[in-house]
Amino acid sequence: MTVERKPGRRPGDPAVTKKAILEAAREVFSESGFERATIRAIGARAGVDPALVHHYFGSKHSLFVASHQLPVDPAQLIAGLVTVPRDELAGQIVRLYLTTFGSPGSPALSLVRAAATNEAAARMLREFISDALLQNASSLVPYPDARLRVVLLASHLIGVVFAMAVIGLPEVADRNVEELVALLSPMVDRYLNAPDLT
Amino acid sequence: MTVERKPGRRPGDPAVTKKAILEAAREVFSESGFERATIRAIGARAGVDPALVHHYFGSKHSLFVASHQLPVDPAQLIAGLVTVPRDELAGQIVRLYLTTFGSPGSPALSLVRAAATNEAAARMLREFISDALLQNASSLVPYPDARLRVVLLASHLIGVVFAMAVIGLPEVADRNVEELVALLSPMVDRYLNAPDLT
Repeated sequence: MTVERKPGRRPGDPAVTKKAILEAAREVFSESGFERATIRAIGARAGVDPALVHHYFGSKHSLFVASHQLPVDPAQLIAGLVTVPRDELAGQIVRLYLTTFGSPGSPALSLVRAAATNEAAARMLREFISDALLQNASSLVPYPDARLRVVLLASHLIGVVFAMAVIGLPEVADRNVEELVALLSPMVDRYLNAPDLT
Repeated sequence: MTVERKPGRRPGDPAVTKKAILEAAREVFSESGFERATIRAIGARAGVDPALVHHYFGSKHSLFVASHQLPVDPAQLIAGLVTVPRDELAGQIVRLYLTTFGSPGSPALSLVRAAATNEAAARMLREFISDALLQNASSLVPYPDARLRVVLLASHLIGVVFAMAVIGLPEVADRNVEELVALLSPMVDRYLNAPDLT
């Protein structure tokens, strides 16, 4: 297992190796998108064996989360939401969303900002959302159009985050999280639970 | 009235003068934001008398719309919506929104894209939205929190546009305008007409 390629690296220092892997991951995801990126390619870029990448970071999915400093793993987040009582679910989703994206400099919001002006970043985000969020949509929404419903509710929430943390409209930027939870939960609840959307 | 400063310009050619004014307007709005930009400063930048700017483009507001090639003037758009029957209003708003922002290269969407990564562009957009859209919110929404309601419904719609035209999620990108109108109108209708949002 080769853990040292670049000159000046202390052999076998896990912190240094992890940092190199995370940097390589960001590069490869950005160049190849999420789907086509491989642990093998990321290992090669970092100069380490792919097995070591797996050992430190688990799946490609987890490596994306770690390399983009996302505060939560969307797949774990959905797994956690499944146990939330049905009538508290909408509020919990809004709260999680706002704390993940709501500050102007948050890493999650940086991904969205980058997607706005860069086609490769947009593709990477699209593929990651599909993989991390939409594949598990049906565990939250008991309808055949679960993916559509999750896209619509996530769209509303990211739009509010945009108005709040990017454009800075005081109508939303000056409210605290719980006020926004109260305002937005009924809409999220509708997308989760209404038998018919139209 | 000085209409010629730059060398090579045909004296008094209105097309050339208008083009110079629009270019100067984009520069001044981008540097100063919408609020602090003045017709006087834009005239000076273009090398023409401010009266000529007024003559060709009317208000600062109209000049912003023209210089950013927006397909509609939000203030005129709201004036037009006031006469739409109340039960058709939500659908009409969604339709207008999607046709204005919905294609990836639309000038309106370019303003939003720029705001995502550039603080000056974000401020310009925030000030223009406040001036053009939110000041007239109460003519559409018969509640004291009209501005908040318009921000929330516009946030949902811009979020859907983002998912569709920027990130390219097929769940929304592959639908035609009328399908999206049917899906989104109930939510817009709620923000326009529900007595209580929470």
